Amino acid sequence: MKFLKIPAATITRLSLYTRALEGLIKDQVTVVSSKKLAELCGVNPAQIRKDLAYFGQFGVRGVGYYVKELLFDIKKILGLHREWNLAIVGVGNLGCALVAHENFTKQGYRFVAAFDADPMKAGRKLVTGLMIYPPSDMQSVCRDKQVEMGVICTPPEFAQDIANRLVDAGVKAILNFAPTQIQAPEGIKVENVDFSVKLDNLAYYLTTS
Amino acid sequence: MKFLKIPAATITRLSLYTRALEGLIKDQVTVVSSKKLAELCGVNPAQIRKDLAYFGQFGVRGVGYYVKELLFDIKKILGLHREWNLAIVGVGNLGCALVAHENFTKQGYRFVAAFDADPMKAGRKLVTGLMIYPPSDMQSVCRDKQVEMGVICTPPEFAQDIANRLVDAGVKAILNFAPTQIQAPEGIKVENVDFSVKLDNLAYYLTTS
Repeated sequence: MKFLKIPAATITRLSLYTRALEGLIKDQVTVVSSKKLAELCGVNPAQIRKDLAYFGQFGVRGVGYYVKELLFDIKKILGLHREWNLAIVGVGNLGCALVAHENFTKQGYRFVAAFDADPMKAGRKLVTGLMIYPPSDMQSVCRDKQVEMGVICTPPEFAQDIANRLVDAGVKAILNFAPTQIQAPEGIKVENVDFSVKLDNLAYYLTTS
Repeated sequence: MKFLKIPAATITRLSLYTRALEGLIKDQVTVVSSKKLAELCGVNPAQIRKDLAYFGQFGVRGVGYYVKELLFDIKKILGLHREWNLAIVGVGNLGCALVAHENFTKQGYRFVAAFDADPMKAGRKLVTGLMIYPPSDMQSVCRDKQVEMGVICTPPEFAQDIANRLVDAGVKAILNFAPTQIQAPEGIKVENVDFSVKLDNLAYYLTTS
């Protein structure tokens, strides 16, 4: 299934809607208005309707959205109705924290392999039981374990080399936590995580409030 | 100075523009067109012009933007022309990784205090030299060290209590990494970091490509 020309911001918001819907299910809410859902997500109701309209007809006029149904539909749109196999590269503090982080496992992201260049780490297991391999094994391990996404937590100077190796190993999507820009060939999707952007929002708030 | 009704997305994009401008300075570029800057940031040129128009007149028609000047101006808008004092709460793997992360220090965010409820940790120092205090000292330490932002890296079940304590200690901005929603009184800004939202973007890409 191909959806063309969907803005990246819409996809990010769909992701936020699933978090809010999961919260509603936890609170045993079965139906939600677009106004209430919008409130929970910090967007306006028209935005929700516009985002969903890219993918079809959702909700019932005068009633709202059936929470479970909408969650199911959005998860299917995003490809979250299944599990994804991830490899982590660089198991320092951040890498270890990510492998153990509840948000990842809860959303169906499963770490199936770990890599680290430190010979003291390669060959050992993480506390979660995940085996740590040297980067030289990347190609064979990624193919064996059907790794679909790579998560880079190395120091910045190694990030590009690791990205190249992941791509060579058939990985088509990379989440980069290293504070550097990564170049990837066409057909490979890279998302960068920069925590400090969120701090900038706080700084702006404190400056103007 | 108050800027009213600026969309949150504009503030986030301004933050991304500063990252791109810093990259240009590193590459010794002195002038950039809005087309080129837009390319670097993954937005369209009209968006950049619209975002900047909230704050005044920037750039020279037919020339573009002077890189250093624009960076200076955006940093001032965001409140990044100064340093900010941060406290980290919860110095497990993630907390330690954040305190040491280059992106934070590079952008002027300085960790001046650390807290952890583990009696094995409180009273000791992090490898960065930062002293770890018990949460019961939060009020006095935060006031002493003039903490302006709190970063929560505790397990989710403690996050709300820690947020309350930070607010009691006079902290008005919180970055929450715990996988749970935090309630805060009016006048307190909370930003949640959920890494898995970025993974959802990758999942969508892999599903539709």
